[in-house]
Amino acid sequence: MSDTEPPVSRRDLLTLIGTLAGSAVMYQAMASLGFAADSPHKGPLKLDGDPRGASVLILGAGLAGLTAALELRKAGYKVQVLEYADRIGGRCWSLRGGDRYTELGGAEQRCDFDKDLYLNPGPWRIPYHHYALLDYCHRLGVALEPFVQVNYNAWLHGQRAFGGQKQRLRHVLSDFHGHVAELLGKAVSQDKLDDMVSREDKEILLEALRRWGALNQNFTYRASLRTSDRRGYARDPGGGLSAEPEVSQPVGLGDLLKSGLWRYLATGNLYEFHTTLLQPVGGMDMIAKAFARAVGDDVIQLNAKVTSIRQDDGQVTVRYRDSRTGDNPRTASAQWCICTIPLSILSQMEINVGAAMADAISAVPYGSAIKIGLQFKRRFWEQDDAIYGGISYTDLPIGLIGYPNHGYGDRGKAVVLGAYVFDAPFAYEFTALPPAERVRKAVEWGAQIHPQYRDEFDSGMAVAWHRVPGTLGCYGQWSDAARKIHYQNLCQIDGRIALAGEHASYLPAWQEGAVLSAIDTVTRLHQRVMASR
Amino acid sequence: MSDTEPPVSRRDLLTLIGTLAGSAVMYQAMASLGFAADSPHKGPLKLDGDPRGASVLILGAGLAGLTAALELRKAGYKVQVLEYADRIGGRCWSLRGGDRYTELGGAEQRCDFDKDLYLNPGPWRIPYHHYALLDYCHRLGVALEPFVQVNYNAWLHGQRAFGGQKQRLRHVLSDFHGHVAELLGKAVSQDKLDDMVSREDKEILLEALRRWGALNQNFTYRASLRTSDRRGYARDPGGGLSAEPEVSQPVGLGDLLKSGLWRYLATGNLYEFHTTLLQPVGGMDMIAKAFARAVGDDVIQLNAKVTSIRQDDGQVTVRYRDSRTGDNPRTASAQWCICTIPLSILSQMEINVGAAMADAISAVPYGSAIKIGLQFKRRFWEQDDAIYGGISYTDLPIGLIGYPNHGYGDRGKAVVLGAYVFDAPFAYEFTALPPAERVRKAVEWGAQIHPQYRDEFDSGMAVAWHRVPGTLGCYGQWSDAARKIHYQNLCQIDGRIALAGEHASYLPAWQEGAVLSAIDTVTRLHQRVMASR
Repeated sequence: MSDTEPPVSRRDLLTLIGTLAGSAVMYQAMASLGFAADSPHKGPLKLDGDPRGASVLILGAGLAGLTAALELRKAGYKVQVLEYADRIGGRCWSLRGGDRYTELGGAEQRCDFDKDLYLNPGPWRIPYHHYALLDYCHRLGVALEPFVQVNYNAWLHGQRAFGGQKQRLRHVLSDFHGHVAELLGKAVSQDKLDDMVSREDKEILLEALRRWGALNQNFTYRASLRTSDRRGYARDPGGGLSAEPEVSQPVGLGDLLKSGLWRYLATGNLYEFHTTLLQPVGGMDMIAKAFARAVGDDVIQLNAKVTSIRQDDGQVTVRYRDSRTGDNPRTASAQWCICTIPLSILSQMEINVGAAMADAISAVPYGSAIKIGLQFKRRFWEQDDAIYGGISYTDLPIGLIGYPNHGYGDRGKAVVLGAYVFDAPFAYEFTALPPAERVRKAVEWGAQIHPQYRDEFDSGMAVAWHRVPGTLGCYGQWSDAARKIHYQNLCQIDGRIALAGEHASYLPAWQEGAVLSAIDTVTRLHQRVMASR
Repeated sequence: MSDTEPPVSRRDLLTLIGTLAGSAVMYQAMASLGFAADSPHKGPLKLDGDPRGASVLILGAGLAGLTAALELRKAGYKVQVLEYADRIGGRCWSLRGGDRYTELGGAEQRCDFDKDLYLNPGPWRIPYHHYALLDYCHRLGVALEPFVQVNYNAWLHGQRAFGGQKQRLRHVLSDFHGHVAELLGKAVSQDKLDDMVSREDKEILLEALRRWGALNQNFTYRASLRTSDRRGYARDPGGGLSAEPEVSQPVGLGDLLKSGLWRYLATGNLYEFHTTLLQPVGGMDMIAKAFARAVGDDVIQLNAKVTSIRQDDGQVTVRYRDSRTGDNPRTASAQWCICTIPLSILSQMEINVGAAMADAISAVPYGSAIKIGLQFKRRFWEQDDAIYGGISYTDLPIGLIGYPNHGYGDRGKAVVLGAYVFDAPFAYEFTALPPAERVRKAVEWGAQIHPQYRDEFDSGMAVAWHRVPGTLGCYGQWSDAARKIHYQNLCQIDGRIALAGEHASYLPAWQEGAVLSAIDTVTRLHQRVMASR
């Protein structure tokens, strides 16, 4: 290799290793070079070759549009971005004190949250394996902190479970594990599973069950210091005299099963909710803002409502108006177009693409979701209930209560996620109500779990995604059948038009889907541009 | 009630409710007033009555001594605190760049950590149910953030497990749950547990196992999108074309059992390690510093090595010297003494208490522990392994690797807990080595889990608790037998001398034990003082 040759890029090195040694070795190499073997994200995008001033019009300044704009601009393209809303970010959005938000139908809400408090109406957590999104966060300097998904001291509540009495997650979880371990231990030690468990494994399995399930030496799960060291005590160990702990009484298997509360136990075991989940310090839109700074404000035009997208042999022309007034019709054109407009909107718009893509655009219904942020006068969930962050679950129409994962111990006001429901009839019921009424209902229902709601409620904001202008839904809700027929057609570049967004991914509703989709689209578009020279 | 009467305090109200309505109602009331029913902590301490200038000499400025000083001073006592070390806090301690630390035997270490980086050689996490400690944190304005105990993407490593190949916790945990659910499901559906599970519960249990264990419709745990959505994929779902996920292959039950890695699975289910665990922002000693500010520096004398404690009918007299030089013998005296000196030291000191307390003081051996902080040039655990905070476990002599739970994504250096072992022969082996050698060994062993150790290691600090002057051990290691005979005798006030500290609690090694012990001691001492008038 001569000194004048450019250094081998990480990507080139990986391709070389892959060619020479096969994928297993390549995965190994990738991991050691900084990107996990199991991710489709292969590190910072590198678009080789000079596009010689080729132009791309990007529709939408959500994370897909911003990713595309950032990468194409960096690669030398002329980029212009049109955004419907009066802010960048799309669903990467945080509402703060002073913000005003008008939903479809005209209802306006003013956010009265205190300084530094916010609601993320869209995404609110980032799995550690959303490598592409995190890679951008790191490179763009977005500070991250833990998002607590599972809080052992949070509540599980079922209207018909334990007579409507809320239960601590730690009680339900410890007792479920304990009973499962005891039952399986009995079956194994009574030789009832000899066809499935080898003689050799049997003793180890028993020991594993004893340890994991907090069983005693007789392999039973009974009230003891050992079980209390899982579920918590009736009286915690203390200091000085009279400090001896009192053991707590586990719930019986039958009651536990009938309560149905076991349905919440696997939540933290889902890949998407594994620890460590992350959130940007200060609100999710810190990501969008960091992207926008990197892209450059000069290329993003806000308040631009696209009305039609037309392509011919040489270019794509987009008509748009001022989205606030409906006036001031204009056109923008470029050689290529990346459209990230949600399919819920795009399917109602004039766009001359082939039948395959057109059919795909119309094939995807949009999921419903509602989020309600409630500001309270004090952190009673911390002060009274010792719940620091995490989530309580309920079968009431609010679905859950999400506690703030920052500012623990603060003495001022704080904002709780007072309802988050999706794809359930509840979401539509909430959406049908005026915003103030949604908030009122969330307070009323939430008070069944936290009676303090009644005295401490301060103000609220309700975002029903089917009424968010420019989105009209929460995310592309692919069925397996629809994906089989339409997904590839949606993602193929149609002439000069390519789509991107969470709807063009296998990660619907996640920001990672939007980012990966944009990276994939940009990569293929660039290949096409370079090939056309 | 007349207008001139003081308002009823929360504590009085609780006593009243307790008297009138019994403890069940009182617990309910307590919870709604802000303190958990299951805690021995009953809210801010209120010592009624004027001690009229009674004086208390407090030995030790760790959390027990600081709590006692704060409460007694607030109640009107004359307080003086003698501390052996050249800093307040005791085991509530953080090492930072520029710090020097000399252990028993004379070996000195200089800490070369970068700005804002630290090692907590002592306690490093606070359970949400350590109500007394958290109550002080909140009142003294100590900022808290989440401490991540369980990280699903961290490593489990056994030298003889899977041929020494480290495993992701999420793989081991998901597969263990899956196999347990499948086995129990088989036993139940084949009617093998009909004597233990009612007909009514059977169907619910099967559904619960299916959902919790990610079983398929045949109640088996087999490679699928469903199981991959627990353990992770061979290739994660992506965006655009070629984005389809690839499922991962679970580990078989036999391999899993033989690996022994299941022994780490219950860690996060232990009451003391439940989410949400907390840590002070900036290092554990932020708590000690906040206490010291509230107590007032004027009453705390550092570098004071107590050599004898003598009481007579009227007062307690303590002899002490400058702990750095051994010179300058002096005495201090007061009407009462609260001694928080660790029993490992106190048992070697002249103190005229009765036989019962003297025997108790000598009855408690001290646990061993070592912590080694390693500074690396970059956060390769985040950048290469996608591990944000939490802990990897190994059966190597380092025991575990604890990743920093703050500053995620930072590009600079960072400090990892490179070894934490207690009560094992390992701890003594480490302690026997010179500090630099301990650090070298920790790097060598850790490199088996993170090969990047070799290139990225920067500097380290090793604290072996048996060599910490003024402590000579980590914590009071009570046996059940010793506690039965000696604990009450240790905690009783002997004449004018009372003890406090984690050793005088049912929470050995925890700061909460020290604080609760101090609260209990102070309360009883105050009662005695008031009764003696």
